[in-house]
Amino acid sequence: MIPASLRWQGAAPGRPDAGALELIDQTLLPARLEWIACRDVDTLVEAIRSLRVRGAPAIGIAGAYGLAVAAGEAIRDGLAADAARAHVLARAELLACARPTAVNLRWAVERVVGLLAALPDDTPATALAEAALAEARSIHAEDQRLCAAIGRHGAAILPAGGILTHCNTGALATGGDGTALAVITTAWEQGRRFDVYADETRPLFQGARLTAWELVERGIPVTVLVDSAAAQLLRSGRIGCCIVGADRITANGDTANKIGTYGLALLAEAHGVPFYVAAPSSTFDLSLAGGDAIPIEERSAAEVLRPLGVQAAPAQARAYNPAFDVTPARLISGIITEHGVIRPVSRTTVLEMVPGTESR
Amino acid sequence: MIPASLRWQGAAPGRPDAGALELIDQTLLPARLEWIACRDVDTLVEAIRSLRVRGAPAIGIAGAYGLAVAAGEAIRDGLAADAARAHVLARAELLACARPTAVNLRWAVERVVGLLAALPDDTPATALAEAALAEARSIHAEDQRLCAAIGRHGAAILPAGGILTHCNTGALATGGDGTALAVITTAWEQGRRFDVYADETRPLFQGARLTAWELVERGIPVTVLVDSAAAQLLRSGRIGCCIVGADRITANGDTANKIGTYGLALLAEAHGVPFYVAAPSSTFDLSLAGGDAIPIEERSAAEVLRPLGVQAAPAQARAYNPAFDVTPARLISGIITEHGVIRPVSRTTVLEMVPGTESR
Repeated sequence: MIPASLRWQGAAPGRPDAGALELIDQTLLPARLEWIACRDVDTLVEAIRSLRVRGAPAIGIAGAYGLAVAAGEAIRDGLAADAARAHVLARAELLACARPTAVNLRWAVERVVGLLAALPDDTPATALAEAALAEARSIHAEDQRLCAAIGRHGAAILPAGGILTHCNTGALATGGDGTALAVITTAWEQGRRFDVYADETRPLFQGARLTAWELVERGIPVTVLVDSAAAQLLRSGRIGCCIVGADRITANGDTANKIGTYGLALLAEAHGVPFYVAAPSSTFDLSLAGGDAIPIEERSAAEVLRPLGVQAAPAQARAYNPAFDVTPARLISGIITEHGVIRPVSRTTVLEMVPGTESR
Repeated sequence: MIPASLRWQGAAPGRPDAGALELIDQTLLPARLEWIACRDVDTLVEAIRSLRVRGAPAIGIAGAYGLAVAAGEAIRDGLAADAARAHVLARAELLACARPTAVNLRWAVERVVGLLAALPDDTPATALAEAALAEARSIHAEDQRLCAAIGRHGAAILPAGGILTHCNTGALATGGDGTALAVITTAWEQGRRFDVYADETRPLFQGARLTAWELVERGIPVTVLVDSAAAQLLRSGRIGCCIVGADRITANGDTANKIGTYGLALLAEAHGVPFYVAAPSSTFDLSLAGGDAIPIEERSAAEVLRPLGVQAAPAQARAYNPAFDVTPARLISGIITEHGVIRPVSRTTVLEMVPGTESR
């Protein structure tokens, strides 16, 4: 059984038995399953930046709960209503900027901020905490429903043959059962059988560490490959489709996702293998016309040069370490959302399927 | 300064101060530079199988010296001429099969075997050892000249812009300065300046560990990237060409090389970036019409699941681990040999440039 990647444990801040946001420390998996309690925003921001919690939907939900954590700080510091609100809004901005590429983080934080902004100015910190926690729980519960819907829509269109996925897009990456991985596990639970291949997903091995762990825990056999073996695997004819998640999708369908996704999409195209993206509508950023506008996070050289903490390269070597790349819409066979499958992928079909407007 | 990857240290077997084949244990680089002395064939075969010595030309040279090592065994065991010859030939077959994909290994072993076969039947083990050692030294010295010639021919056609390479093709992979890496270092020594990017080359990190080390030792700045970041790098416009080595090239120019090479060639094509292969003529196997006939070595799951000895994936995960893939000739802009550059790459141009016939 896969535990949820995160949970609010205990009562709202300010109450007796006030709780905390608890996260699985995903950097320790699969060796150890340990939870981190976030009672202050700094701990949460560090957890997001270090990928202790990761996956676009999951960091969105974590960010939403973060506003309840921030209100808890205001309560502990005895701040009056005005100061408490200012504190929470400042912490909200810190949270929203913790990682730049996934749009779900800012989307979720801003959704809670919007709710708090609608409360009267003299709302005390305890009530801000209650409201933030309720909204975060609502976002979390919604995500569970979105994951289930994505799983169903995706399973319905999954072609025959093996499935190749990249990075982790399961329960650990979301508040529910996942996006791309939910498609795989839903089809499996429906009784379909197929080989599942997981790219190890350097530099942080989310495929080998997290996707393989989730599948093993669910009793689904999984074969891990180094990312650069994907071309040979695709050529072998064993793969019926590739399916990946997304960190941000622009109005034309261009998709930012974990580094290596763009290359995989090109390789899939070269071998005539369909390439699907699965993501909830909160991953769409309709304010951006195309993928060139998506900010791409560059992460530390150590991720490349010290895999799993072991120095691989000489100390004097430099590193090129973009955390994401952008797959142009033309390489994507379909985008599986909670509303259904967008295909073919174009500005028109995206705007038909995804609620909201460019001014969202 | 880069030390040679291997050397015969001391006199021939049977002589006073009889020496041994010494190899850098490449599995320990860049952390430690240690030499292994091979006084018996089992040690050498283990070193080849474990990639303590690797690189198609280098394992060819090691295999050639291995026949002198085998003759040394016969001398120590006091074998008569007939038994000594039979022993050396049996050990030759073991050496030739130590790894299946690179053709240089069998080519070099058979070259020494052919020389020994021409000696009278009553040639004693000491004379077999002398003859094998002399021929191995000759193959080694030739490889140094071939590397230099490949470096010159390649440097002459190197386009402007950054250079992306995969795996290790330098001094550690050959008996000289390398193949693809010799092109890079030769151009640099001629005063040209460019950015060098090295794919880390999972599963065994030969790019991060060995190529980066060689370049750092030579004072050439190097940037390492995870293999799956190559598509994004190519898209960035920073790369003027890709250049890689080869483990076996068939008569039509299809090229087996380290896993990931085929995918990289497809990505280079998608971005309009020239893709070059550099290899001596001993890497060509004109007995094979095309790449489908090349045996591809599958290596252990541990290489994928335990990077650098650290368990990354759950114990129950399987692995897909082909050590090589085949790049079709149509994706190769040119093959740089000691005789010049084969381009365009076709059966006709290969047979024009590479001496020998299909019956070689």
